[in-house]
Formats: sequence, structure tokens, C-alpha cells
Amino acid sequence: MPPNETTESLATAASRIPVARIVAPRSVAVIGASDDVGKFGGRLIHYLIKHGYQGQLLPINPKRATIRGLPAYPSITAAPGPADVAVLAVPATQLLAQIEECAVAGVGACIVITGKLAEVGPEGEALQAHIVATARAAGMRLLGPNCLGIFNPVDRAMLSSSLALEVDALRPGGVGLVSQSGALMGTLVSLGNEYGAGFSRCISVGNQADLELCDFLEYLIEDDATQVIGLYVEGLRSPRRFVELLRRARVAGKPVLCVKAGRSDAGARAARSHTASLAGSYAAFEAVCRAAGAVVMDDPAAMVFAADALARLPRLPAAGKGVAVIASSGGSTAVLTDQLPAAGLRLGEMSEATRAVLGELMPASHVHLPLDTGSFQNGSTEEGVLACLRAFMADPDIGAIVYPMTTQPRMAGYAALLPPVAREGGKPILYVMTAGSVGDAARRAVGAADFPWFDRTGDALRVLRAMEAEAAGRARAAVTPPQRPAGAGPLPAGLRAGPLTEHEAKCLVAAYGIPVTREHLATSADAAAAAAAEIGYPVVLKGVSRAVVHKSDLGLVRLGLADASALRAAFDEVRLLLEQVAPGAGEGALVQEMARGEAELILGTTCDPDFGPMIMVGFGGVLVEVLKDVQFAPAPLSAEDAEAMLRRLALWPVLAGVRGRPAADVAAAVDALVRLSWLAHDLGERLVELDINPLFLRAAGQGAVAVDGRATLRAGDA
Amino acid sequence: MPPNETTESLATAASRIPVARIVAPRSVAVIGASDDVGKFGGRLIHYLIKHGYQGQLLPINPKRATIRGLPAYPSITAAPGPADVAVLAVPATQLLAQIEECAVAGVGACIVITGKLAEVGPEGEALQAHIVATARAAGMRLLGPNCLGIFNPVDRAMLSSSLALEVDALRPGGVGLVSQSGALMGTLVSLGNEYGAGFSRCISVGNQADLELCDFLEYLIEDDATQVIGLYVEGLRSPRRFVELLRRARVAGKPVLCVKAGRSDAGARAARSHTASLAGSYAAFEAVCRAAGAVVMDDPAAMVFAADALARLPRLPAAGKGVAVIASSGGSTAVLTDQLPAAGLRLGEMSEATRAVLGELMPASHVHLPLDTGSFQNGSTEEGVLACLRAFMADPDIGAIVYPMTTQPRMAGYAALLPPVAREGGKPILYVMTAGSVGDAARRAVGAADFPWFDRTGDALRVLRAMEAEAAGRARAAVTPPQRPAGAGPLPAGLRAGPLTEHEAKCLVAAYGIPVTREHLATSADAAAAAAAEIGYPVVLKGVSRAVVHKSDLGLVRLGLADASALRAAFDEVRLLLEQVAPGAGEGALVQEMARGEAELILGTTCDPDFGPMIMVGFGGVLVEVLKDVQFAPAPLSAEDAEAMLRRLALWPVLAGVRGRPAADVAAAVDALVRLSWLAHDLGERLVELDINPLFLRAAGQGAVAVDGRATLRAGDA
Repeated sequence: MPPNETTESLATAASRIPVARIVAPRSVAVIGASDDVGKFGGRLIHYLIKHGYQGQLLPINPKRATIRGLPAYPSITAAPGPADVAVLAVPATQLLAQIEECAVAGVGACIVITGKLAEVGPEGEALQAHIVATARAAGMRLLGPNCLGIFNPVDRAMLSSSLALEVDALRPGGVGLVSQSGALMGTLVSLGNEYGAGFSRCISVGNQADLELCDFLEYLIEDDATQVIGLYVEGLRSPRRFVELLRRARVAGKPVLCVKAGRSDAGARAARSHTASLAGSYAAFEAVCRAAGAVVMDDPAAMVFAADALARLPRLPAAGKGVAVIASSGGSTAVLTDQLPAAGLRLGEMSEATRAVLGELMPASHVHLPLDTGSFQNGSTEEGVLACLRAFMADPDIGAIVYPMTTQPRMAGYAALLPPVAREGGKPILYVMTAGSVGDAARRAVGAADFPWFDRTGDALRVLRAMEAEAAGRARAAVTPPQRPAGAGPLPAGLRAGPLTEHEAKCLVAAYGIPVTREHLATSADAAAAAAAEIGYPVVLKGVSRAVVHKSDLGLVRLGLADASALRAAFDEVRLLLEQVAPGAGEGALVQEMARGEAELILGTTCDPDFGPMIMVGFGGVLVEVLKDVQFAPAPLSAEDAEAMLRRLALWPVLAGVRGRPAADVAAAVDALVRLSWLAHDLGERLVELDINPLFLRAAGQGAVAVDGRATLRAGDA
Repeated sequence: MPPNETTESLATAASRIPVARIVAPRSVAVIGASDDVGKFGGRLIHYLIKHGYQGQLLPINPKRATIRGLPAYPSITAAPGPADVAVLAVPATQLLAQIEECAVAGVGACIVITGKLAEVGPEGEALQAHIVATARAAGMRLLGPNCLGIFNPVDRAMLSSSLALEVDALRPGGVGLVSQSGALMGTLVSLGNEYGAGFSRCISVGNQADLELCDFLEYLIEDDATQVIGLYVEGLRSPRRFVELLRRARVAGKPVLCVKAGRSDAGARAARSHTASLAGSYAAFEAVCRAAGAVVMDDPAAMVFAADALARLPRLPAAGKGVAVIASSGGSTAVLTDQLPAAGLRLGEMSEATRAVLGELMPASHVHLPLDTGSFQNGSTEEGVLACLRAFMADPDIGAIVYPMTTQPRMAGYAALLPPVAREGGKPILYVMTAGSVGDAARRAVGAADFPWFDRTGDALRVLRAMEAEAAGRARAAVTPPQRPAGAGPLPAGLRAGPLTEHEAKCLVAAYGIPVTREHLATSADAAAAAAAEIGYPVVLKGVSRAVVHKSDLGLVRLGLADASALRAAFDEVRLLLEQVAPGAGEGALVQEMARGEAELILGTTCDPDFGPMIMVGFGGVLVEVLKDVQFAPAPLSAEDAEAMLRRLALWPVLAGVRGRPAADVAAAVDALVRLSWLAHDLGERLVELDINPLFLRAAGQGAVAVDGRATLRAGDA
């Protein structure tokens, strides 16, 4: 039985204790508790006490009467109970017996730190399945195995042996995390804590044998203490539920940021070894996240900084605004400005009102972005800097301010200006102090106001980029939901499974209103000539066999046939050739109009095993392979979605019309994408693949035409 | 008089005190010294004393008898002397008088911290010129104005008011810095110091009114204490000298890393306002640095980390090797592995010997990169990790190891393994500890061995990428110097200034052995027909006028003329059209063969005002404008240089032959680039611009042909 099914049926069966009470339990048993913090069980109880756990603590250890001054119990069944949660970090060999005892004792949920289970091979898999079955029979939930437990700074419940808990205290705050890597979670929380970030609840889900990422994502969406959610994902147990939860998070106004392992093949392999996860398609994951308004990032540390910024800074007023760069170092503002384009950001265009404010402070030649406050007439002053910042807050083209401060006199004073201005103005200010310890006073001035700071310009720019993506995701709430265009479907009756011929594939897309070349299938030279006469010369002739994939490579495509004699000759040649390359599988020849276009796209669809029908678009020809300039989105698409896909292509300016070239018919491309997306949607799991390659785009207003296509379907019940 | 000339003539005249003695002076006068560290003069003397300056200190202040317990002097002329160096942070209004006194007193060099000079406008420029003239007349050197002075940790001479000196001590070490931004320098040194980096000498050159970046670059190349050189550049005073010094640094085995402001237009404007520098062409700067083996980076903090890594880690054995990623967190190794391709890095391919070592430690299914030491049979152990690291050190495809450690038990013990293995094995290990303070013990274990550590994976990857560039730059010592190919030149006699016609431009490139289309200039329809008969139909006809730049847009190009009647008709049409668009400036029509190719390149040359003749190559057509996929290099080129340019193009795989397309004649493209580079070299400053667009490349072995070209020359004395 694949793990997905096991998990989901279990999730339904075993739902006695709600997730919220696992995260904030009234009583916790530590199986194998110890006074020795060198042991897992010792660290577990140590951290619970150290971080001020307020509930009932039940140390379980058959050899000791007390542990850390608390009465210890020889077994979980001997302890007063039932405990909401038992935490187990026992060796794998003892795990099953302990889980059985927990079940008998009526424990609500077990947090299983123990590793070396499904992630290491068949034996571990069997043991894991056994444990799950035991828990399931008892209606007991499991977190893990191979996890690092839970940090709940809001309730001071630290159910984890992670060394991240060595800090004196973790700040409570608005960032909730769910991670498939416990070690990474510990490291990230420890990092964020150093920068003043506050966390609500952080959950390491490990092998997700029972409770899985989506259970905690759902909980965090409903949790009042959580404002922003960060996810580290290796492989999803229930992808469709995940997408639905992303939508709910957007409706709840809680940004979701994700890092997913497996962008590279080697990374996917590493994730698989790590928590027994199948990584799934990264491109599909990224596409569904974007469509649902979530933010996909490529670095976990940057994700924590971004989540913290979204929790503690005003959010961007809208996506696509400019950035104001300001500081008293011409060098640092110049360098940061140079870094904006690669980060997908742009400088703002100052309004006349802003220019007027700045003009009072500095020579006219210095009134520009980036702004060097060192060029103030009488030297940089707090009042002057404040006036500039306030002007930026009021400036309609400016969405955010970046302030890359260098070591300078009175730096803490300048830094202290920023939090109130940002809060009053409602726009984020990203304060960067790169210097070492000499910058601490300035950082403290910002941090004292519970305001984030950065010590790398790169971190600030990655965060700002994520804030842009968050604003774009937020705007998706206003995007028109996909509407089926007139004439898109229904699916023709009697669709056959297996590979379709070009003509069949084009009939299918034509049934959804996508224009295709005028063409006729001919099985004799006479019929071909009659078809060509109707279409008008010159024509194209293509030998047809569903056994042949690359027609051109085999010489089965004849372009630019100018008259009937050329056509007849070509027909005979192609028929002979077909008999050689696909004996008995020839189905005649396709007579087709010669189409022309300004630009050539490839449109593709597949049915992703995790996320269902996906649409792909890129430029046709050799470039698609070299540049990998393709975009994905889940079907169906709205027209806005489709146009956004095209605009994200690096080669988009070619469609929009570069010097000396007319703009292509983008509206026709959008329409074809939308219609294809409904076809993919309707085909659903019957869709193996379906490509239009190429779709020729004529000049603006003159339409598009599908010139070639192929499709493979599987049997279904349409 | 432009600043370049002022500076360079001065540099020749005023050379009394060597730069080395300015950086390590035996005696230092502080003009305006004070006991008040809130004042510039107070901080200057405070930092000199605090950091243990060993030479003679001369506080100058007319109002005080002693300062910081040292005898103070009312003026520099009253002090025992002459001082090697006087440091001035006086207001601009007093600057000239003080410089004059220094000149009278025979001071060797003045370090002028004072700003608001040439960088703020004409008045400041005049004052700066005055100061320079005064110093020049006295044979006194100047550093600055608008600079932050010098840090010399090796000799404990801190001649600066930078707040970076608030730290207890700056570690001496192998990294030398020269910066056009003082504030940025202070911040960078403060940052590096926090990470254990050691600095030899750091010089802020400010407005470079006299001593300039190249003076200190030359000094650092010769300085025994300096192993690696970092430069922050806004605009160069003497670009050719800069390039020559980069070559000397390479010969001396000292890597040079640069960040240059002005990659974006807005960044260039900021740099100009900042230190009165004209930013020059970023593309040309980057190209000459690469050609000279220097490393151009885009972030100053990353530059400091990279310089430190090159000073304290073994360097890469060679460029192009793979990376081994290893740690006990599957999550962090997966994420880091996913980040490699975007950083221009790749995973290594393990040898059989390495696999055998790993196979002893873990199940066969886990023997892969990235390596998760958590999958060791009996848990991660120091011995196991050590065995893996040593195997990587011996593995021929592995050039470096990245170790992204998360919080884990015994982390300091694992961290302590790394420095000796790296030093013994002679390959760098980049140790990353992202956690906050809980990771300090592990960082200390690495730092105690004087070994670098990172707290961002992004920093480590940027450093590794810079190390790759350093290895590639080092390898340039082995590159064959450019050799003039047979038949490349000489320049034809009697070249005219101004725009050339296509035919003239092609005759010029043909004189350097670049194949051009067969073509004849015809001034009558009869002559055109005769030419076409010789060339063979179909032909192309192009109306010729040097007054016309975009021939095609005006309808002056007729393709595919199939026979004499079509040709004659086209000739008459083109002649009429020319009379309309360029009355009296028509020069007939060019009859040209119809050329075909597999790929289309654009080759360009210009004479950069800073660096001389530069060669550009990119793909022709609409893509060059949209993708900006072009490469630059200084002329002349070796064949290796030319091929490397082509290989750096994103579209390179198109030339190399992607699926279904033949490889293009790369050798012919290389030959054309080399020949064009010699033409540009020979034209030198007479070259305004010269493009071959397109150069058609035929299939491999079948050559290339220049199909169109244009050129503009200025008068010269060839």
C-alpha cells in the first residue's frame, strides 16, 4: 500500500486528540527521561523545564524514583494519565513496545524522535508500518518518526531534543514553521532568534507516518498566534489538500512561504534518502504554489528572514512598486542599487513632491535615487533623513525603502528613526547593517523597537523579493477565477487511448476552439490533390502513422508543395517511406495549408501525479531546449493567468514587439492557452501528454494557428 | 584639465616618500588632535594609540599643551619633524591653510579625511585643484580628500577616524584592500574581523586627487604581508596601468578580487556623485579583469569573504572540478545541492575509490552526493566523517567540499576535524554553520584553527564561485598569448574617416582574412546583371549610401532575385528609392550572393575610452536585444580566448549542436573573432565602431561568411 493511502485513511480514523492540543499539551510524558542531558531523554525533560513548560510533566524511567526533582514512573501505564502527549527518543528496537504501552495508557499522541525507520530501507519501513497500525488501532496520533518534535514558544512548550533549545529563551512571535527536516528547523529557529524573529509554533514532521505537514499547516492557518507560515517541504503526502490549504491561508490573510528540496535531480535524491519522501515535480509544485498565492523560495534562511519581515514589518502596499535606496554611504547605496535588477527589483521614480522635499536638503544634482544623505547641504542630520523617509512613505511609486547603513557617527540615532516612520507610513523599511560588532548599537536601536534588521544586503534583497511575491499572491484574491470560454469543449465522444495522430490531436484541440491548420487526411494521391485544390497551394504533406513520433527526422514532412504534380510525387514518396519505417501502420497523408507566423510557441500539458493537469508554455524551436525558458501553471487558467505566464517568459519582449518587429497576437496566444487548459482539465487523469508544437502567432489582431500537435491518452470513463 | 592628466603628471612629479612609508609611517602628525573622541581629530589620535601605533605621534592643536598625555604642538611647523604623514580632518575652509603649513614643514604625505570637495561641485573642485597644486609644488603626496585613511593591522598603524576601529583589535592577515568608499571599507573590515579574517593594509582612496587606487594596488602586489587583494572601484584614474597591474598580480600569484559600482545606470550615477568618478563601461571593466585573471564580484561583503577564503584556505586545485556536499542533515545538504547550479557549480562525480570508502560506512543506496552522514550504519562518528573527507581529498573530480552543518550533538568535534584535513589534502572545505549562538562552539572550533567559517550557505557558494574564477584566472598564465594569424592585416592604405559603406566595411574585414559574401558594387543595371551572372543566381541587391544606416527598414534590400529581369527591375526600384531617401548620396547597388548558415552571430568592436579596443560577440537577430546574451573581451584575442567567449554565451549549446541540429562551424567563428580582434587592435583609437552582423556559420567544417557589416572610423595617422 503506498504511504499516501495509509496516511490519509489513518488521519480519518485516528482523530481523538486535536492537533492544537498536541502542540500545546496539558500533560507530557517523557519516555526514557533522564537527569543526563547527554541523552535524548535527558535533553527532552531539561528543555521542557528550562523553557518553562506550564503543564504536567511525567518522567518515565523504570530505574529512577525522581528525575529533575519530579516523581518518575516506571512505565507510562503506571503514570497518572492519560497524558496528552508522550515523547519518545528510545532506540528503534524498543520503539514498538513503548508505543504499545502508550496505546494501552490512552496517550493522545506520541512524538517519535527515534529515526532509522522508513528512511533507511525495507526493515525500517515494516517497523514503521507496525507502529502506525498499533497507534491507529488505539486511536492514538503519531508525529514522526525521525522528527525533532515541536517548539511552541507561545505556550513555552518545547517538546524536542533539538540543540536549538540551548538558548536561554525563544521569542514568541508570529512565525509558524512546519519542516520535514528537524535539524534544519532547529538551525532556522536558532538563526531567526538571533535576529529578533519570534515564532508561534514550529513542528518537525519527519517521516509523516501519521500526522503530516498538511495537518499542521491547517492548524497554523486557524491558530491565532500565527501570522505567517514557513514550510520546508521534501515530499507531500496529500498534494491536493496542500493546494486547498494554501488557498485557505490566502483567504485568512496569512502568507505562506515554502522551500522545497528537489529542484535539482541530486537534491531530489537527497530528499528521498532523507525522510523517505518522493520529491515530486518541482516545477509543478512551484506552479501550484504561485497559483494559490504562496511564495516559493530557494533558501531556508532567507525564508525565515522573509517570514519574520512579513510578521513584523508593514507589508508592501502592492506588487510592482519601486524601491527607494537611501543611506549616507555613496558606495553602499551604489552597490545595492546595482544589485536590484538581478533580484527582480527596480528603483522607484520619485514624485515631484518627493523631489521638492529633497531639493530643500541637498544640491539639485544629488536629488536622485539612490539617495546619499551625505550630500545634504549641512551634513546628514536626523531631521533631514526623517524628512526624506516620510517623503518616500507618501510617494505613490515607492513601495519599500532599503537603508544600507555603514559604520558612521550617530548610527544608532539614525537607525532608531526607522521603525516609527515605517509603522506610521505603512511601508516596509529594510535596514541593513553589514558591519561587525561595531554596528551592534545600531542594530539594537532597531531591534529594541521589535523591528527586523539585516546584516547582508543579499538577505534584505531576497526578503524584499519575497515580499513582492507575497503582494502578488495577495493580489490573486482579486483575479477573476477561470471561466470556460464559449466553445471550449465538450470532449468528443469515443476518444481512443494511446498515441493519437497529429490530425486526431488537432481535431481534439479544435473541439476546444483552438484554431488549427486547414487540413485533410488523404489515403490516395487523387484525394490529396482534391484536398490541396480546396486548401490552395502551396501545401504541406505529412505521412501519417501513430507509430511514428518524429515525422520530420524520417523525411515524412514535405513543405511548400507548389502544384498538383509536386503533391502527387510527394504523396507517392511518403507512402513508400511509411511502408519502410512503419510497415502496415501507415494511415495515409495529411494535406495541410502552409502557415506562417511572427512567433512560434510550444504549448504543452501533462497530468502531474501530485497536482493534476498542468499547462506549459515556451518558445518553439531550438531555443526551448537550450534556454529552458518555459512556464508552468495548473489547469484551468484564467486569461490573466495565461497572460502572466507569457509575461514571465524571458523572451516575452519578442512577443511584445522589439525594434523592427511587429508585436505578435498575444491575445490569440492567451486564448489558445486558456482553451488548452480546459481541455487538459476535462481530460484529467486520461491525459498522459498533449502538445501543440508549434503554435504560430501572427501579427497582433491576426490570430494564431496550431501547426502540429501530438497527444497520448490513457483509457478513462469520459 | 581632466582629472586623469592632473593626477598622472603629479604622480610623476611628487614621488619623494614611497607609498610603503605612507602606509607604515615612522611619524604621524594629527592636525586638530583632541582629547574628545566625538571629534574627528580626537578619534584619529585615540585609534592610533588604542591600536598600538609604534612610531612617533605628533598631536597638533594650538589650544592645548598635551593631548592624550602626549606633548601637543601649536602647528605642524612647530612640531619636530618632518613627519612622514599628517592626517587632516579639518573643515574644508581651513584645509588649504593646513596643507600649506604641511608643505612648509616638509611633511611626506597628507591624508585628507575632509570631504565636500570635487564630489560636491565646481567650488569644491577648485579647492581640490588648489590643494593638489600646493602639494605638488612641495613634492608632498596626498591621499584623499574625502577618504577614510588607512588601516595597517600588520604594523598597528591605524591612520583613520573610521568607527570600524572601535573594535578591540583588528587581526593582521593576508587580505589587502583598496576602496574608493571609506565607509564601505570600514564596514567590510569590521565584518571580516568578526569572521576571523585578517587584513594586511586597507586604504581608502576617496577622490584620488593625487595618490590613486593603482598606486596602492602596485604597493600591495609588492607587499610581503599581502596575499590576496580586494578592490572596491567606482572609477579608475589610469585604466591601462590598472590592467597592467592585474597582470603583475597574477604573475606574483596574488589573486585580485574587485567589486565595481556602476553595473546599472543608477549605480553609475550614484558612484559619480559619490567620489567624483566617471564610472566607465562596466562590461569593458569586467572583460579586461577576466582577461587579466582577476575576479569581478557583485557584492562587497562576498568579496571580503572570498578574499579571506583565498588567504586562509587551500585554493582550488583547478577550475571546473565538482563539489562534494556532506553533512549529517539530509535537509540542509539537499537544499544546498539544489543551489549549486544557479551558483555556477556542480556536484562532483565520485571515483570508485571514494565509493568504496563510503560503502564501508553506509548502505549502498546512500552512497551518493550529497552525502548524509546521518545514514552511516552505526550513526555518524568522527572516524567515519574523517574517512569520507579524506576520500574526497583524494578524489580527482572533487575540487572542494561544502559542509553545511546544522545544530547536532558533538558539533564542535565534527567541526574541529575540518581544518587539518583541508590543509593536509590541499583542497578547500567551506564550513557553513547557519544556526545562531548555539552554533558558536562549532564556529570557535573551526576559527581556533585560523580557518574560515560561514553562517549563510549563500556566502559559501558565492565564495566558492569566486574561488572557481580565481582558479580560471590562474590558469590564464598557461593560455597562449594572442598570435596574429597569417593574412590578418596590414590595414589598407588610405582608410577614410566617417561611416563606411557595407562594401567598404567588408573589404576592410576581408583584408584581415575574414570571409565575406561574393559581391560587386554596380552603378548601372548592366553592370549589376554582369555581376550577378558571375556570382550566380539567386542574388541579393542592396542600395548603397553611406548616409543610410538601416537599409532593410527603407526597402533598400532585395533578397532572392532569381534572374536577370528580376534583378534589373529591382535595380531600377532601388535607384529611385535611394534618390528619395538620400538625394545625391547614392553610390549604386551591391550585387551579392545569397548566403545561408546554420547559425547567425553578431560580432562587434568598439574602442573603449578606458581600455582600448574591445570585441563583442552574441547571437544575431532579435535575440541579442532581448536576452542581452553577449560577451566582451579586450583585443587582440587568442583562439582560446575567442572560443571561451563563445562558450560563455547562454546560447552556446545551439552552436555546439542540440538535438536535431548540426553543430555550427565553431572553428570558423573563432577564426573570425581572432581576425576581427587584430583589425580592432590595429585600428586602435581610429575605431569608433565596426560590426559584422550577421556572420553566418555553416555546418562544422564548412566555414563562415560575413553577410553584412558597417563601420565608422575617425581620422588617424596610419
